[in-house]
Amino acid sequence: MDEFAIIRRLTEGRQTPAFQKERGIVTGIGDDAAVANLTSGCQLVMTCDTMTEEIHFKKITMRDTDIGYKAMAAAVSDIAAMGAIPRYALISLSFPKGTVLDKIESIYKGLYECADRFKVVIAGGDTTSAVQGITVAVTIIGEVERGKALLRSVAKPGDVLFATGFLGLSAAGLQYLLDRGIPSGEWDEHSVTEAHSALVRAHCRPDPQIEAGQLLQRSGICHALNDVSDGLASEAWEIAEASGVGIDLIEERIPVAGELLVYAQQRELDALDFILYGGEDYQLVGTMREEHAAAMQAKFREAGLALHIIGYVQTQPRGVRLVQSGGKVVSLEKKGYNHF
Amino acid sequence: MDEFAIIRRLTEGRQTPAFQKERGIVTGIGDDAAVANLTSGCQLVMTCDTMTEEIHFKKITMRDTDIGYKAMAAAVSDIAAMGAIPRYALISLSFPKGTVLDKIESIYKGLYECADRFKVVIAGGDTTSAVQGITVAVTIIGEVERGKALLRSVAKPGDVLFATGFLGLSAAGLQYLLDRGIPSGEWDEHSVTEAHSALVRAHCRPDPQIEAGQLLQRSGICHALNDVSDGLASEAWEIAEASGVGIDLIEERIPVAGELLVYAQQRELDALDFILYGGEDYQLVGTMREEHAAAMQAKFREAGLALHIIGYVQTQPRGVRLVQSGGKVVSLEKKGYNHF
Repeated sequence: MDEFAIIRRLTEGRQTPAFQKERGIVTGIGDDAAVANLTSGCQLVMTCDTMTEEIHFKKITMRDTDIGYKAMAAAVSDIAAMGAIPRYALISLSFPKGTVLDKIESIYKGLYECADRFKVVIAGGDTTSAVQGITVAVTIIGEVERGKALLRSVAKPGDVLFATGFLGLSAAGLQYLLDRGIPSGEWDEHSVTEAHSALVRAHCRPDPQIEAGQLLQRSGICHALNDVSDGLASEAWEIAEASGVGIDLIEERIPVAGELLVYAQQRELDALDFILYGGEDYQLVGTMREEHAAAMQAKFREAGLALHIIGYVQTQPRGVRLVQSGGKVVSLEKKGYNHF
Repeated sequence: MDEFAIIRRLTEGRQTPAFQKERGIVTGIGDDAAVANLTSGCQLVMTCDTMTEEIHFKKITMRDTDIGYKAMAAAVSDIAAMGAIPRYALISLSFPKGTVLDKIESIYKGLYECADRFKVVIAGGDTTSAVQGITVAVTIIGEVERGKALLRSVAKPGDVLFATGFLGLSAAGLQYLLDRGIPSGEWDEHSVTEAHSALVRAHCRPDPQIEAGQLLQRSGICHALNDVSDGLASEAWEIAEASGVGIDLIEERIPVAGELLVYAQQRELDALDFILYGGEDYQLVGTMREEHAAAMQAKFREAGLALHIIGYVQTQPRGVRLVQSGGKVVSLEKKGYNHF
């Protein structure tokens, strides 16, 4: 059973939509974040992301500050994917009694680095001991103009699918770091060869797309929106399923970063595998009507941001397909990282 | 270094009060929950509580549903201690891949039992794997009328100190369960002797005092307020320090539950030790002017709730003292459970 199935099994039918609506919930479990009415004018946007030692990070992949930075970034990214603005964060941090405090401080330093960047107030939390392993859970409360949150369930046939940047770099960075096997406390940015630094940075210091999310939300023409935490195939599947549509990805329109291409060639791997089935890129993918695409791309360029049109939304809900460069169409599985 | 010192070291000076105020924070780190302006009329109240396996719960102390119930209850209690109303919860749950799903479902069942009781919507969360041990972190977002949150920093000399119920039962229940040593999955309420059921219930199914918190908040006459998560001595110390006052506890006015008295006598222990230095009772302690006490007690009685006057706030900030039944005055240490 995968993560989504477990969550469904745990939560489905426990609290009726009516119960939730009465208490102001507009979007509950099942999207990137929950949306709730608190007062007129604005809606709360709430999300939570957890990172555990040896699963999400280990000594050879991430420095301590990276752990904090990325935990915050992952939660911020969920807020970006709603077209919302992150405001407050609560941190749940547990670690074994013997943990060196420097390590915990470094994690917090990373949390604050990311929080400061997005002007998020760390407003509270809970620090407690654990028998084994560090766990960091970040909850973010954000806000969005009433009714303006961007959900994954509103892709419409005829829409184009877009992505806000290169994908697959984080997964390649992870593989590079694992193969390299040097404790991360002992390296700094300079010890990573230039050819790999973009991959490592993508894995350790992801760049949540709040600005892009805001541009999309304010434009009023964005339909579905999702952030890429589990690979493009998985995220496209989520949009397709939630919206009751199909999505075709056009291989030759998917941008491939030079660093990823070089790395994949060196390792005799397929760059597209990293893009489709890697994860933790924290770019945004979404849909809008085709006639709006050019103007939106111009707006993004003006803001120094990228917007790539990489696919189409189809009426038939036959999942996600890849239209290969040769014209062949193949169905894509919804894999991506499965915790269980 | 204790938990508070670590949190201070991690957070102090990282974000200035001005930075936080600009972003709407009215009360940040350092109280039971954080308060923030989002819109006119209401303020957000946010808190987070974490429970980890073997530290907060183990097979012989809590059933799986209890774990969830108590994790939610602890967070709800922080909201009660602000005089606020809990609205939304986000759950971060991590557990080893091999964990039987029934166990996780039972934890969630407990989370929902408590959430339903207080009409809290579980609005999201993150479920992920861990190498060892279950960790449950509950974040609650609540609301309170603007400016009406009850802080721990406003106790005034001449105030009386009150408690909303019996204390020490949870710690006694924990000790009873540890001594008994029967895996909790194998017992039910009926297998606990009647004499101990109140203790076990206090430990496994604590009763956050939302209704009492609301009564106190709406009355407009409550000064400081705190919930008892770390024992009466520790909580009184928190109020004393935050308010810059001293607090005298009057031994003969501290109510002792019959079940606790019997248990302590059987074990040849001092019931007062459980009250002062136990924890996780989740009653409220607070202060108000002495002349308001009788009317407030009447209001509580009317609502079927208890309000015990158990001490006095003194001008001299000489910490927390116990006025013993014989008239002797002893200083109390600020001990309580320390994670580190």
